[in-house]
Amino acid sequence: MSEPTLDVLTIGNALVDVLSHEQDAIIDRLDLIKGTMAMVDGARSDAVYAALGPGIEVSGGSAANTATGIASFGGSAGFVGRIGKDQFGQVFAHDLATIGVTFDPDGSSTSGPTGKCLVIVTPDAQRTMCTSLGVAGDLAPEHIPSDVVASARVTYLEGFLWDQPTAKEAFRTAARGAHDAGRQVALSLSDPFCVDRHRGDFLELIEGQIDVLFANEDEICSLYEVDDFDAALQRVRHHCSIAALTRSERGAVIVAGDEVHVVDAHPVDTVIDTTGAGDQYAAGFLHALTAGRDLAACGRRGALAASEVIGHLGARPEVSLADLAVAHGA
Amino acid sequence: MSEPTLDVLTIGNALVDVLSHEQDAIIDRLDLIKGTMAMVDGARSDAVYAALGPGIEVSGGSAANTATGIASFGGSAGFVGRIGKDQFGQVFAHDLATIGVTFDPDGSSTSGPTGKCLVIVTPDAQRTMCTSLGVAGDLAPEHIPSDVVASARVTYLEGFLWDQPTAKEAFRTAARGAHDAGRQVALSLSDPFCVDRHRGDFLELIEGQIDVLFANEDEICSLYEVDDFDAALQRVRHHCSIAALTRSERGAVIVAGDEVHVVDAHPVDTVIDTTGAGDQYAAGFLHALTAGRDLAACGRRGALAASEVIGHLGARPEVSLADLAVAHGA
Repeated sequence: MSEPTLDVLTIGNALVDVLSHEQDAIIDRLDLIKGTMAMVDGARSDAVYAALGPGIEVSGGSAANTATGIASFGGSAGFVGRIGKDQFGQVFAHDLATIGVTFDPDGSSTSGPTGKCLVIVTPDAQRTMCTSLGVAGDLAPEHIPSDVVASARVTYLEGFLWDQPTAKEAFRTAARGAHDAGRQVALSLSDPFCVDRHRGDFLELIEGQIDVLFANEDEICSLYEVDDFDAALQRVRHHCSIAALTRSERGAVIVAGDEVHVVDAHPVDTVIDTTGAGDQYAAGFLHALTAGRDLAACGRRGALAASEVIGHLGARPEVSLADLAVAHGA
Repeated sequence: MSEPTLDVLTIGNALVDVLSHEQDAIIDRLDLIKGTMAMVDGARSDAVYAALGPGIEVSGGSAANTATGIASFGGSAGFVGRIGKDQFGQVFAHDLATIGVTFDPDGSSTSGPTGKCLVIVTPDAQRTMCTSLGVAGDLAPEHIPSDVVASARVTYLEGFLWDQPTAKEAFRTAARGAHDAGRQVALSLSDPFCVDRHRGDFLELIEGQIDVLFANEDEICSLYEVDDFDAALQRVRHHCSIAALTRSERGAVIVAGDEVHVVDAHPVDTVIDTTGAGDQYAAGFLHALTAGRDLAACGRRGALAASEVIGHLGARPEVSLADLAVAHGA
């Protein structure tokens, strides 16, 4: 087995986020569920967009956000996902390249629109999302670069991929390739409704294919169909090698068999927008993990990255996370 | 003469801004001049973009920004400019419609790229811009809706239009149409280098065609080729019916013949990004002017609008300027 050339390869939906500040009432009026992600077709996306105020466009996509966080920490990260040959695709590719994430725009682009995620930010800093996948949903096994997967310490997959049949196969191909090369596979459960849609598959996957699991409280409770966090914790600890369970301002719990760490959230002055908190938590955690740090240190670095991203609008770091890690000794 | 149906019609380059935070060094490295706008072709724009960090895309364009400010104050505003049939064009049209600015996206779109303005924000909150006009530069006399011009109390034109031969003709057509209908014409000088390129034309225009002139200190000094603000002030007071001259944190001076008002800048906690300060100053001023307020009140409302926009990233208001005006008694 040769030395890995990438710390983390992330695979997911390539999206451009369109953020707008809205009052709470619009969530009900648009039949959305606060704090969750709804997958919609182009027509529904257009109808929701027309109801929203002026927007800010920024590159997004859960797994891609995580890749930018790892790069910002100084780690080597790559991303695989599909973009359109359009302006949003150019923006998405530019924003990865310029932060240092390895991505092949030419090999990743196809005709059709780049995926778009309408992110409605309410006064409580909560975000409610409405995604039209566009060509992001075309991800298929033939798009998984087996050599890159084999060269990455960790291949990180977002649960959202499970919503599309070919992307699900791509997910399986990538996970198999990583394990065949002796590497690790990480999964983010992404969203409680996503878990609800694919519970059986996720339970089976976690049993055999996932080395590091990321989930928030709602997601892990949904996975095991339990009402309280502690019950979910007891289930996951013997189900998965490492699970990092985030609980917003109550911090995170990291479990690996009998090893359990409770890591406090990093303090934040004002929470502006929680978009990307989970993505950046995963970035910090995986950056530390691939650098050989212990699990408590992984948790602290995850918390630090999450605290940075919720302090401003958008799901990607605005400052160097490497500098921030030095400043906070994380 | 029938009652006006619009307070202000603004005409200018339809642009999407791509903002990025950069260190000062990049300005020299890219051969740009801090605080100014460089007009570039697509290839140069691509080269500059490739050198910049991750961006935030927001609708922009000087005159369009002014229209959104007037709408945010509760005034009726329209915009005329050219967009492409592309994603940036859709974003631009959405962001005008949703804030209440009258704009005809179908009649205003053409094949070719929507104009793009790379906005480099340095740590001093100053912005340096690099614009590739795309189809915004195609604006021509046949695109000026004579009925709309005739129905607006004020037609507001940005000096940047003078950089394109057909847009210059469109500018003349609009100004003539407004005056023929007994309406007023306002001009923003836009940028000191723009003034330098078109000094003779601007001097002649102001003499005969402009009722309200907006300029900052650099621009008005460039216009009259004088070194100090007071010298420029003495020149402009007998040259133009109303001139509103902005001086950043030193406030603004409004002159109309023998009438002179010095209006302080509105206090700001932290200046984040000066992009759009002049555009929003014009919005507040024109909103008050078209409501029949006196010149001092126009100046105070301009200062209030400018203070809102420099407190955050981007060139358009983030809160209701009408609410802000009530809160501050402006």
